[in-house]
Amino acid sequence: MKQHELTPSPLAFVPFVSVQDMMNIVNEIGLARVLGEMARYIEEDFKRWDQFDKTPRVASHSKEGVIELMPTSDGETYGFKYVNGHPANMARGFQTVTAFGVLANVSNGYPVLLSEMTILTALRTASTSALVAKYLAPTSANTMAMIGNGAQCEFQALAFREIVGVKTVKLYDVDAGATQKAARNLANTGLKVISCKTAEDAVNGADIITTCTADKQYATILTDNMVGSGIHINAIGGDCPGKTELHRDILLRSDIFVEYPPQTRIEGEIQQLAPDHPVTELWQVIKGQKSGRVSKEQITLFDSVGFATEDFSALRYILDQLQKTEHYTDLDMLADPDAPRDLYGMVKRAAKKKAAFEDNGKVSKTSVATANV
Amino acid sequence: MKQHELTPSPLAFVPFVSVQDMMNIVNEIGLARVLGEMARYIEEDFKRWDQFDKTPRVASHSKEGVIELMPTSDGETYGFKYVNGHPANMARGFQTVTAFGVLANVSNGYPVLLSEMTILTALRTASTSALVAKYLAPTSANTMAMIGNGAQCEFQALAFREIVGVKTVKLYDVDAGATQKAARNLANTGLKVISCKTAEDAVNGADIITTCTADKQYATILTDNMVGSGIHINAIGGDCPGKTELHRDILLRSDIFVEYPPQTRIEGEIQQLAPDHPVTELWQVIKGQKSGRVSKEQITLFDSVGFATEDFSALRYILDQLQKTEHYTDLDMLADPDAPRDLYGMVKRAAKKKAAFEDNGKVSKTSVATANV
Repeated sequence: MKQHELTPSPLAFVPFVSVQDMMNIVNEIGLARVLGEMARYIEEDFKRWDQFDKTPRVASHSKEGVIELMPTSDGETYGFKYVNGHPANMARGFQTVTAFGVLANVSNGYPVLLSEMTILTALRTASTSALVAKYLAPTSANTMAMIGNGAQCEFQALAFREIVGVKTVKLYDVDAGATQKAARNLANTGLKVISCKTAEDAVNGADIITTCTADKQYATILTDNMVGSGIHINAIGGDCPGKTELHRDILLRSDIFVEYPPQTRIEGEIQQLAPDHPVTELWQVIKGQKSGRVSKEQITLFDSVGFATEDFSALRYILDQLQKTEHYTDLDMLADPDAPRDLYGMVKRAAKKKAAFEDNGKVSKTSVATANV
Repeated sequence: MKQHELTPSPLAFVPFVSVQDMMNIVNEIGLARVLGEMARYIEEDFKRWDQFDKTPRVASHSKEGVIELMPTSDGETYGFKYVNGHPANMARGFQTVTAFGVLANVSNGYPVLLSEMTILTALRTASTSALVAKYLAPTSANTMAMIGNGAQCEFQALAFREIVGVKTVKLYDVDAGATQKAARNLANTGLKVISCKTAEDAVNGADIITTCTADKQYATILTDNMVGSGIHINAIGGDCPGKTELHRDILLRSDIFVEYPPQTRIEGEIQQLAPDHPVTELWQVIKGQKSGRVSKEQITLFDSVGFATEDFSALRYILDQLQKTEHYTDLDMLADPDAPRDLYGMVKRAAKKKAAFEDNGKVSKTSVATANV
């Protein structure tokens, strides 16, 4: 009974990273450094792609949106993310996307981390985009157009500054207020920020185009004549069935790179194309098995939908920061009975312990009777 | 910025029921009453079976065990459970099964409850077993044999006392220590407890047989000659591929009732039978569309594997107890930026707020610089 007398066993605890903890971790380490370090975790995991259990996400669709579970495992560690997508939320005062995630030991099934992932998903999406651009964008790329200046925008801009060396970002959003917000947030970050009145303006002179809009519908954020040769397109917003951002003709002129074809063909821009349209898997490029950009004229397109392994990498990165930063709390989430098969006894003894505690050591009959069976 | 100045918005919080909270809830309400009330929630949800999104669990198997996600939704509320099953855990000082679960609003995707489910799974399994027996066991049933006296045993016994009116339980386990533990725990619960040296002894004179053993293998806990006519069998332990408890001949003599055929045919006792062997779905019996027990001689078998809707019902019950019992804590799990699309601004302002807080209102340049981008 020793350590179980008044507190749960150490085995009962799972470290929890709250939203506040996540912000503290990011602010303590520095956002740009977090984005760069996280990109290396994502890169490492893409390089050992065949170690991962891969399965398309498990989605529960409703008329208002979708709730998804995204599980994966590398054989040693299991991870999953819960994430929702509700386009109408913003008008009602809620976030479009919220998320949390878990890592667990495969060997005993015990969770080892529970973390908020609304912020973390924004970070891993930006890190992944910039990592991929390192392989696909023109080597001289220093100007990025950003179409869509919502929650993801600033993270993308800083990740591209940190990882790709982008110097100038040209912002455009149908909502001028969103552009103002992004421009304000990106002031004094070392980036030259240009706010544009049209998507055409934003794209003009850009080496990289990032599209990141949130409507749950087929939209045409970029038309064919806006995309010149040599461009790298980082298409983030087309990420569920019925939601795309690019005109089909752009896709036909591009070499298309994807995370996991079975998922991207359902959710990505390429849902507009034939199911056997050729695509290159990113892990093969990152591992050096296939070419990324091969010419100056080539249009490269990262049809990003977000894959479970990226969340896994991001959670793995956060777990590795916990000992250093100590921004977490321990949650009493796992029942760990004093005697392994005596779950019932643990519940019964809890009532006695509580009574004893409240009575300051004197267990009264009345108190014990609260363990009513 | 009002309410966001130093604390997260109320929208950011998700009620969390820890292991200690769950024990407090159970002990405050009383275990038997919890089992009875939970059975009514499970019954209600079986009666509205066609409202639920049903999908077999998403399993990640390894040589040591399995980690599963079990999602479902009734169109208004979404729920899922994380659960592992690792038979070798006990020898290493860990629980075989640990679990936690979540409920969320379908309309906006926001989680509304995070709860431990190791204890809760034990409760819902016992409540479901007893609820099903109310429909299938002989009406005069008052003696239950319990083969396997592990973590689930006492919960089953009390649920059957509360819901079915069982008066006597006959315990048997290959490990005599497990039987002693169960007998000790069940003393003074109003049940007559008989510890048996063999499974044959335990089964002798019983109206109901509950099998609940934990080996991950094909085992034969009950052989054909042990099962007389008129018995109801509550088979809990055969619940994953390769794990069964009953001899095939017993199945052939029984009328078999299951939760969700596509899952039970993979995981239950009936994995030993042809894929088209007739079974009856429980929801049809509970809704009155099909017969349960029709004769005194009939052998009825509940091939229990545990289904997502039962976890959903159990979580729904716990959520309904929170306001009354107040045994929960609020977790800052959802990012809720002061301006809806300004996730980045929220992260940056957190550093400033922290600095302001630490400096007791005076924001120094050095402190603000911790919001390093």
